[in-house]
Amino acid sequence: MTPERFSFNQATAKYWPLPDVIAGCAAAGVRSVGLWREPVAEYGLARSAALVRDAGLTVSTLCRGGFFGADDWLEDNRRAIDEAAELGAPVVVLVCGGLFGRSLADARARVADGLAALAPYAMDAGVRLAIEPMHPMFCADRSVVASLAGALALAAPFPRAAVGIALDTYHVWWDERVFELIAAAGDQGRIACFQLADWCVPLPADVLVGRGLPGTGHVDFAPLLKAVADAGYPGPIEVEVFNAELWARPGEEVLRETIAAYRSVAG
Amino acid sequence: MTPERFSFNQATAKYWPLPDVIAGCAAAGVRSVGLWREPVAEYGLARSAALVRDAGLTVSTLCRGGFFGADDWLEDNRRAIDEAAELGAPVVVLVCGGLFGRSLADARARVADGLAALAPYAMDAGVRLAIEPMHPMFCADRSVVASLAGALALAAPFPRAAVGIALDTYHVWWDERVFELIAAAGDQGRIACFQLADWCVPLPADVLVGRGLPGTGHVDFAPLLKAVADAGYPGPIEVEVFNAELWARPGEEVLRETIAAYRSVAG
Repeated sequence: MTPERFSFNQATAKYWPLPDVIAGCAAAGVRSVGLWREPVAEYGLARSAALVRDAGLTVSTLCRGGFFGADDWLEDNRRAIDEAAELGAPVVVLVCGGLFGRSLADARARVADGLAALAPYAMDAGVRLAIEPMHPMFCADRSVVASLAGALALAAPFPRAAVGIALDTYHVWWDERVFELIAAAGDQGRIACFQLADWCVPLPADVLVGRGLPGTGHVDFAPLLKAVADAGYPGPIEVEVFNAELWARPGEEVLRETIAAYRSVAG
Repeated sequence: MTPERFSFNQATAKYWPLPDVIAGCAAAGVRSVGLWREPVAEYGLARSAALVRDAGLTVSTLCRGGFFGADDWLEDNRRAIDEAAELGAPVVVLVCGGLFGRSLADARARVADGLAALAPYAMDAGVRLAIEPMHPMFCADRSVVASLAGALALAAPFPRAAVGIALDTYHVWWDERVFELIAAAGDQGRIACFQLADWCVPLPADVLVGRGLPGTGHVDFAPLLKAVADAGYPGPIEVEVFNAELWARPGEEVLRETIAAYRSVAG
């Protein structure tokens, strides 16, 4: 039986068409999926929502909002929240964006301002914004939120129901303070979602697409899973892996392997 | 006039022969150099020491000790300390090594044990060990010490004169806590050396050799320099840049450009 808390993030099989992802997950006994806005838009929002519902699945997260340095950030993030609400996704993951020509301090202040602008809107929609601290190697170009400590500080001013954090092992595994920060995130009620991916070396030429399925790299998953459990997070555990080789393979095979990888680390 | 605190780390012009580095630096009015063990060994330790002394230069740091997972770590680190003493270098920079097949927690414990074994030896030699927190993207394969917080925690049990930290802008610029941690490092008397390099994107295929001269990338140097000054660090400021394109160019040109880059950010 497929583990109850397992959720398949569709980015792990990036080119698998949405209807096939949903049918494949339903057939494999998967209970929830992490979706991305582009494939949802391509298939149609209402159709996607119906597809997921009819298959008896739930949507664990919708990726992604954020990118607060983009010109249309406000409108685009509101759309992401609306889409999540329609899909029944409780969480929109925020990739907060890089420097976009600002200093690091200014770019971080912009993220804080963006959250302030969006939090009431998210609250009204019943959708939670999940600030994703990304690996520091993405700090200049993808996310100025580079550590759990930074993400928690950004979330602190807002109601828990409006703003949490997205915890991804790939992004935080290296942090000397990771266990105390996961505990703090739990105490503060901020863990909005939890994703697994592994760190493999050597890094490929495009570092964005070199993540590994859990168990294929250097992350020590057991203590991280325990820390998140001890922190009281009861929700789905997604596997989200950006990997060029996985993306070249058939979706069903990737799903099967992803479930096996999940089992190997999370039981 | 070349700025007084500027130190040229020879790794910035990796293939420039040591005698040329020393002659070039002396001619340019540079007061100190950061040396690496391999070129020193190649030229001869005693000859290198005499060369530097005769040129009226001082050695700011010797790179590198560390790699605590290597079989010969104890002997090799003692040799590094001896070499630093002979060169008159006050500091040996420690690149602490990656996982070497251990879990992250065990690999970090091994670093702590290694420091305990070396600290008295360093103290006796009058050489300070500088734990270098490296960018987290090197955590698996080069340094399990991935943050300033981690480096300071490792240094804490030892006398200041024996163990400090090596602060390199390239490795720590992204950290949300960088300013408070630099202040803490100052309060604790742990800043053993200070190096400048810039973060450039996109990362090259080999991420190790994609650093930039100060001012060519995304690091905001002014607040970092101020923080280090406020923390009471009075010593040399090295420029150490690993960059494949720089390495392909004539050493004198690289030195000239490095001094200009230093001026552009540090005045």
